[in-house]
Amino acid sequence: MKPVAIVGVGKTAFGAFADKSILDLAVEAGRKCLENARAAPEQVEAFYLGNFAGPSFVGQNHLAPYVGAALGIEGAPCTRFEAACASSGSAFFHAFSAVAGGVYEMVLVAGVEKMTSQPTARVTEILASAGDLGGEVKAGATFPSMFAMIARRHMHEFGTRREHLAAVAVKNHANGAKNPDAHMRKTITLEQALAGRMIADPLTIYDCSLVSDGAAAVLLCAAERAGEFTTKPIRVLGVAQASDRLALAEKKDITTFPALRRAAAKAYQMARLEPREIDLAELHDCFTIAEIIAMEDLGFVPRGEGGPAVASGFSALSGEKPINTSGGLKTKGHPVGATGVGQLCDLALQLRCEAGERQVARASVGLAQNLGGSGATCVVTILGR
Amino acid sequence: MKPVAIVGVGKTAFGAFADKSILDLAVEAGRKCLENARAAPEQVEAFYLGNFAGPSFVGQNHLAPYVGAALGIEGAPCTRFEAACASSGSAFFHAFSAVAGGVYEMVLVAGVEKMTSQPTARVTEILASAGDLGGEVKAGATFPSMFAMIARRHMHEFGTRREHLAAVAVKNHANGAKNPDAHMRKTITLEQALAGRMIADPLTIYDCSLVSDGAAAVLLCAAERAGEFTTKPIRVLGVAQASDRLALAEKKDITTFPALRRAAAKAYQMARLEPREIDLAELHDCFTIAEIIAMEDLGFVPRGEGGPAVASGFSALSGEKPINTSGGLKTKGHPVGATGVGQLCDLALQLRCEAGERQVARASVGLAQNLGGSGATCVVTILGR
Repeated sequence: MKPVAIVGVGKTAFGAFADKSILDLAVEAGRKCLENARAAPEQVEAFYLGNFAGPSFVGQNHLAPYVGAALGIEGAPCTRFEAACASSGSAFFHAFSAVAGGVYEMVLVAGVEKMTSQPTARVTEILASAGDLGGEVKAGATFPSMFAMIARRHMHEFGTRREHLAAVAVKNHANGAKNPDAHMRKTITLEQALAGRMIADPLTIYDCSLVSDGAAAVLLCAAERAGEFTTKPIRVLGVAQASDRLALAEKKDITTFPALRRAAAKAYQMARLEPREIDLAELHDCFTIAEIIAMEDLGFVPRGEGGPAVASGFSALSGEKPINTSGGLKTKGHPVGATGVGQLCDLALQLRCEAGERQVARASVGLAQNLGGSGATCVVTILGR
Repeated sequence: MKPVAIVGVGKTAFGAFADKSILDLAVEAGRKCLENARAAPEQVEAFYLGNFAGPSFVGQNHLAPYVGAALGIEGAPCTRFEAACASSGSAFFHAFSAVAGGVYEMVLVAGVEKMTSQPTARVTEILASAGDLGGEVKAGATFPSMFAMIARRHMHEFGTRREHLAAVAVKNHANGAKNPDAHMRKTITLEQALAGRMIADPLTIYDCSLVSDGAAAVLLCAAERAGEFTTKPIRVLGVAQASDRLALAEKKDITTFPALRRAAAKAYQMARLEPREIDLAELHDCFTIAEIIAMEDLGFVPRGEGGPAVASGFSALSGEKPINTSGGLKTKGHPVGATGVGQLCDLALQLRCEAGERQVARASVGLAQNLGGSGATCVVTILGR
């Protein structure tokens, strides 16, 4: 396996953009990324696009050559990857493998989603198509209700409290307020989070991530050529994707994500790093409980201790291990197909010391974790400068 | 790049199966493939699934871990690839690259589509989502009408006649009648084909492929390990994927597919073979005109001479270069996401001399060509025994 580097990053702001199409968003992120690396589209040998549900949200399938041609990447293989909320994490994993395996020297990876043109009820229905349709979803389950069950069980098993969930929201709001590209830039108090409108008990509106439009892109290249494009290459130290069953009902224990643990173990092994050596992380906080479980499954804290750790400031911007310095899915926004690559863009900015007001002092090694559905796909990526 | 072999094939019959879900179909093909190679699901290191529009046809996204878990491939990365009608051709291309690049030694590649649960008008609408939605499709174009325009232009440029189109249908019906897994097993006469109900002038119902349910799978493995699984490994001599613009209106010449030409050039180069060295081929006859153009773009015949070549028997089962001995998309059926891998299964059967009544005498090297949309994605694969 050849060493691989990220040599360019580009993203749109995340938010609700009535005047931008899915094509506009993807092209904006792709162009910014190529410009960031001073690379020409003709140099891109393959285009990997993560998109969850373009066909359902905006009616467009076959999106990869559509975006690729608009970017000027004509001729090269352009492929769409779908793995629910981990779609662009998965695209990145496969692109990395291709460059590491010597298939290509330069690959553009992007993710995009355009969600806000649909009413909320329809958005919830489209998102539910990532679950076990014939079983749970048919019975009425939606992702808020599934993660509410996960949260309840975590509370039951480990004594996690609503205050712990709310602490995740308060932290991510504080971080998002410092991110000019975030969908929602406002701080909240613990009291506000606890008093939020109940969505699926114990999850209030403040425990749920946002429905957003957005796109993000990174340019991957064989590390030996990185100097042609940037003075600040970001090394991909480890990346792994793993799977699990779709249905929550088929899992032995819903307070942990086996796919996350598998992907993490492989990524740590590839990077030859241990959890304590990770300086900061972007975790998939589709719901606040997901960030707490991810901290535990990644080995940042022992099982059951995620909630108290967040409440203690462990994962705050100035804490021991800053988590979601971008604001996370909670406030940066969660344009589903863009989220995985978006996390990598935010990590890369930290590792390049370009994260502005939210810059972390010690940022040498960062980890991103991107989850699909209620855990059936997980991608873990470790980047270093 | 390491040599790669197909060591197992498995497919469902193609047809209308009201009693089989998309999961049933994919699992049936996957199990048959693993049994064919006497491989255990635990040996599969990654699962690549081509599916065009499961979310639109049956409401299910996140299909790869869903199928993977049901097959017992738990934990390994399971990913869905979408590239319109070339979805599983694209999955195969990426899987090949991963094995050739040394990322994995054993990968299961499958394709699946469940189409017949939707009424025809909705099927046409879903298929159209692979076209340029904001432009042509908004203006009312569907794929039959787009390929009708392509056919008309080919007639205008080269003197191709309706009898030539009909000759493709007659040939593929004759072949499909010999295929026990084909959706439609009946021979037709030239007169019948010409008198078919007009769908989009000059294309009659006999010029259009079928709306089908079905799944297909192949097991890919590093060639050095092929002997563990089969005495008849099929070597992947060359494979390439290329892209083009979605909109027909943006193309300089609609009587040729640049993505097909690019993919073919790369695949021939990788295989170190010339068109005349291909013994037989499975071509993407979504419409009869597409088979004629593919013959030309692949260099089997000079440009404009595809129609007369078919009419002369050049591509018949007993002809110089048999094409679509399976019956093609026209009569074997076209469960969109399954088509690319289905072609490879059929080629592999020929190369193993297991094609029964439709076996071709000289079958050492076969080519498959899988097209997405009106040509925006194309995958060309060359297999040898």
